[in-house]
Amino acid sequence: MAKQDGITVKKNENFSEWFTQVIQKAELADLRYNVKGFLVFQPWSVLSMEKMYHFLETTLQKKGHMPHWFPTLIPEHNLKQESSHLGGFAPEVFWVTHTGDKKLDEKLALRPTSETALYQMFKLWIRSHNDLPYKTYQRAQVFRCDTKATRPFLRSREFHWIETHCAHKTEEDAFNQVKEDMETTEEVLHDIFGIPYIFFERPAWDKFPGAARTFAADALNPDGKVIQQPSTHMISKQFTKAFDVKFKDSDEKEKYAHLTCYGPAVSRIFASVIITHGDDKGLRFPWDIAPTQVMIVPIDKKLHKKAETLKKQIQKFASVNIDLSDKRPGEKFNHWEMKGIPIRIDIGLKDLENKTVTIFRRDTNKKETVSEKEAITKIKEIAQEFTKNLIKKADKVFEGRIKETKNLQEIKKVIKEGSIAKCEFCSVDKPGTECAKKIEKEIVAEVRGTRLDEKQKPQGKCAICGKKANHIVYIAKSY
Amino acid sequence: MAKQDGITVKKNENFSEWFTQVIQKAELADLRYNVKGFLVFQPWSVLSMEKMYHFLETTLQKKGHMPHWFPTLIPEHNLKQESSHLGGFAPEVFWVTHTGDKKLDEKLALRPTSETALYQMFKLWIRSHNDLPYKTYQRAQVFRCDTKATRPFLRSREFHWIETHCAHKTEEDAFNQVKEDMETTEEVLHDIFGIPYIFFERPAWDKFPGAARTFAADALNPDGKVIQQPSTHMISKQFTKAFDVKFKDSDEKEKYAHLTCYGPAVSRIFASVIITHGDDKGLRFPWDIAPTQVMIVPIDKKLHKKAETLKKQIQKFASVNIDLSDKRPGEKFNHWEMKGIPIRIDIGLKDLENKTVTIFRRDTNKKETVSEKEAITKIKEIAQEFTKNLIKKADKVFEGRIKETKNLQEIKKVIKEGSIAKCEFCSVDKPGTECAKKIEKEIVAEVRGTRLDEKQKPQGKCAICGKKANHIVYIAKSY
Repeated sequence: MAKQDGITVKKNENFSEWFTQVIQKAELADLRYNVKGFLVFQPWSVLSMEKMYHFLETTLQKKGHMPHWFPTLIPEHNLKQESSHLGGFAPEVFWVTHTGDKKLDEKLALRPTSETALYQMFKLWIRSHNDLPYKTYQRAQVFRCDTKATRPFLRSREFHWIETHCAHKTEEDAFNQVKEDMETTEEVLHDIFGIPYIFFERPAWDKFPGAARTFAADALNPDGKVIQQPSTHMISKQFTKAFDVKFKDSDEKEKYAHLTCYGPAVSRIFASVIITHGDDKGLRFPWDIAPTQVMIVPIDKKLHKKAETLKKQIQKFASVNIDLSDKRPGEKFNHWEMKGIPIRIDIGLKDLENKTVTIFRRDTNKKETVSEKEAITKIKEIAQEFTKNLIKKADKVFEGRIKETKNLQEIKKVIKEGSIAKCEFCSVDKPGTECAKKIEKEIVAEVRGTRLDEKQKPQGKCAICGKKANHIVYIAKSY
Repeated sequence: MAKQDGITVKKNENFSEWFTQVIQKAELADLRYNVKGFLVFQPWSVLSMEKMYHFLETTLQKKGHMPHWFPTLIPEHNLKQESSHLGGFAPEVFWVTHTGDKKLDEKLALRPTSETALYQMFKLWIRSHNDLPYKTYQRAQVFRCDTKATRPFLRSREFHWIETHCAHKTEEDAFNQVKEDMETTEEVLHDIFGIPYIFFERPAWDKFPGAARTFAADALNPDGKVIQQPSTHMISKQFTKAFDVKFKDSDEKEKYAHLTCYGPAVSRIFASVIITHGDDKGLRFPWDIAPTQVMIVPIDKKLHKKAETLKKQIQKFASVNIDLSDKRPGEKFNHWEMKGIPIRIDIGLKDLENKTVTIFRRDTNKKETVSEKEAITKIKEIAQEFTKNLIKKADKVFEGRIKETKNLQEIKKVIKEGSIAKCEFCSVDKPGTECAKKIEKEIVAEVRGTRLDEKQKPQGKCAICGKKANHIVYIAKSY
């Protein structure tokens, strides 16, 4: 990749263009597929997303979720069974109406989400309190003809996700599941993928269609807009009743189960990986989800043997390749920096003479020449601290962009500079709707919610209406 | 699981019922989903199929295939671009015609297979001979509203597969890809999953829509019907031209690429795993694709500590669980035999006293009591030989069901007893069509093809028409 093939804008100055270029130049997805809102995911993103699936799935399995594969197609009447759920998704549903040239008796939806497919099976599978908690998940694609502007990875019309669906005995159990989902998000999205976010409970007016309570993680992009990462929901009694998911409790009484669902969208989380860690040179992959962790670049044919020896030692603990392409060394360096390889090992003729290697690490973008003997220890050291380093930087940036505010003016200023405004607020229940509308109208921003882990309590007045504050909320722009 | 919950028929006497019962009683899939031909895959099959995906994908990656995720939806005009391809799939296509209540300008197909989605991208991606071979694959679901009777796993309307798509410089390279696909099938389907089959080249009248040559593996069910496992195709020039997939060769001339594709259908291969290895007690999983490899059954609470100690030792080299359920020991034994766990370790109170454990192996269905000290070595030994043992048995059964025949009478007899008839045949090209039709009409069987690895040459006359034989073919019933 020649120098002119690098990204031509700065990430923090023109984020939108930076994002478009990095997707194209790091070969993550081809946007030229001929259905609007659909894209072709290329090997470099798929290899990483497969690893992301691995971490999410093993974490869920450890917590007792069992995998299922449900059909992609859901009959129309399932979706209609609970009106607020259908209402939420109706305009976005892709409908199958024919097979061959035959019209179907009933339309089939490409699943926008799978509650209405699963709950009819929950009704068959769940009989007694001994069956609970019933914890499932599936890896699947979902389809939503989103009316908002599509953006690759961030908002596509087909996305690759995991959805978990659970049934519990009590509301308390269901709420504990939400907390467990929050922990899963922390363990995987933050600690492995390195994405900072806040986990909110959404205001009453911003719930998943069919949910009694909705919780969701918001990450923040450099353009000052938040992007919703996994959301988790406590399903409404009405929804559960519509599908008649009951169990016989230990007191012999029939009771409705308490349902929850959680939806980490891998293809969208991948966007946040790119955005959080990428820099003006391209991608930077956290260690565990890098398609390749170490790339060896011998700059002369005489060095191939040395490269091979090194590769054999490294592949015992990391994925490693040798770049044997015809490109000039500088091109190779730029190429692997664009691709986000965590560690590059450059070997020149001098290194052969001096028994050294040069290690380039993408977290700090620094080079260091070390003796052959020390090389393996050094690489292991970098591997150990690589993701931690990325996380530390990302957390610092994120935390620096949450600002306390006291009134509409201050909120406006904070939002304008691309940050998240924290303020006291009258109510995230129905009565707060008017204040939320004012924020939407005057700042084109949204009340994202309250956080479960917030220790501070509101002391004063709502930053908007001046009435008694009952909540601390966070306000941000979104896509 | 009480004894009456076992399978009530013998596999070799009533295969169809055995298959239905094993799917239900080993909890592999729930057939009560409310769209015809679609099923809910349950954890016990999904856990195994995920392992199957793993082996297929790592093998393909080792051979240079790179993963992609293509959209599930394909515009109608892509499918129409090559008429024989559309013709082959048209009656089976699920069509999306609306999003929300808006009619689409152009119908979108749920992919029945992805050639017509990929080739338009190949046209963009492939420029020069340096880009070739271009080897891709994707893990995906495909949708075919098959007009034949659906059967769970064997023939569903949505199935889970891998499809590889490759572009090559020459016809010879393409043919070598077919051979590589054949090797992949042997390495994974036979050597890991333990499925015996024959890899055929299909007769001229039985090709994939759009293929110049079609190759496919046939496995054999106890009812005497073959089931097609992966097929691989050399795509016709006409198909390649329709999508204009060209490259500039080293002689500076523009040439059409030679395309191939290969499609191992994991959910169908899983059916062959069940069918090949299962017995009258239920499933038997090959070692590497067992959801759990070892189950420890302590028959008393006093034995839990011993079970835990054993588990810790075993989990270093195998997946292992302890059955702590309330069931009676006999029920537990039957349950795990039904579920196909390769090794069960029973611990009774006497074992505590004698410092022994009892090892039950599902390949031979035999129990052996060994000292605690020997246990781990013994389990490792069994693990080593387990799949080999299953394969040996399966191969023997399969080979015993291929019979040489000389005329229609003999073919009829062999087919009637549930075997595959091998015979000399006039021609698998167009001229043989009449003889094939006769076989279809009089025996309701099909010429499945010739084998690439056949060393014998035809010496005499066609078993049907008596004219000079040019091929050795295999004849069998199919679904």
